[in-house]
Amino acid sequence: MPVTVIATLKVKPESADAARSILARAVEDVHNEPGCSLYSLHESDGCFVFVEEWSDAEALRAHNAGQAVTRMVEEIGGHLDGAADIIVARPVVAGDPAKGKLRP
Amino acid sequence: MPVTVIATLKVKPESADAARSILARAVEDVHNEPGCSLYSLHESDGCFVFVEEWSDAEALRAHNAGQAVTRMVEEIGGHLDGAADIIVARPVVAGDPAKGKLRP
Repeated sequence: MPVTVIATLKVKPESADAARSILARAVEDVHNEPGCSLYSLHESDGCFVFVEEWSDAEALRAHNAGQAVTRMVEEIGGHLDGAADIIVARPVVAGDPAKGKLRP
Repeated sequence: MPVTVIATLKVKPESADAARSILARAVEDVHNEPGCSLYSLHESDGCFVFVEEWSDAEALRAHNAGQAVTRMVEEIGGHLDGAADIIVARPVVAGDPAKGKLRP
């Protein structure tokens, strides 16, 4: 079953540009990882949100232990305003699959 | 430009089943609204997350003022454990569009 991750990072006001650059670089790297069907980055007023979908829990484990995340964590640390908020979730099936699934 | 919404609702421990039913019903209704390209529901340990994409800000405004949201807010209120956390965000373009955009 696919695994959804919603990861929210609040950054310091002066760090928005640096954070965007670090996180966008990570997006490029992560798209090449096995089992990644979605790794999208969104921004709102000093807050960045990753919405992710992984093929299964093992792919997510490998991602979390991989080089792209290790590098991102090292680089972003000083820019964060508080701890990242990470939710690992499962889909609730409802409605029209074309609009209700991250990856139909 | 599309608008992304990430809405997180923490529910009372005894309310998970009732909340799931109310929110899944809302998903069905919202999929019929104009400008909705994604309205997906996810669940994790007493926490529900909507990941949404709207065609533009006007479509989101109409959604927020519409019957489905009004009904959902009325029904879910007593089940919530704290206020909903709602982030309205814009996409950060990076990497492979097939994996980096909620709706390629």
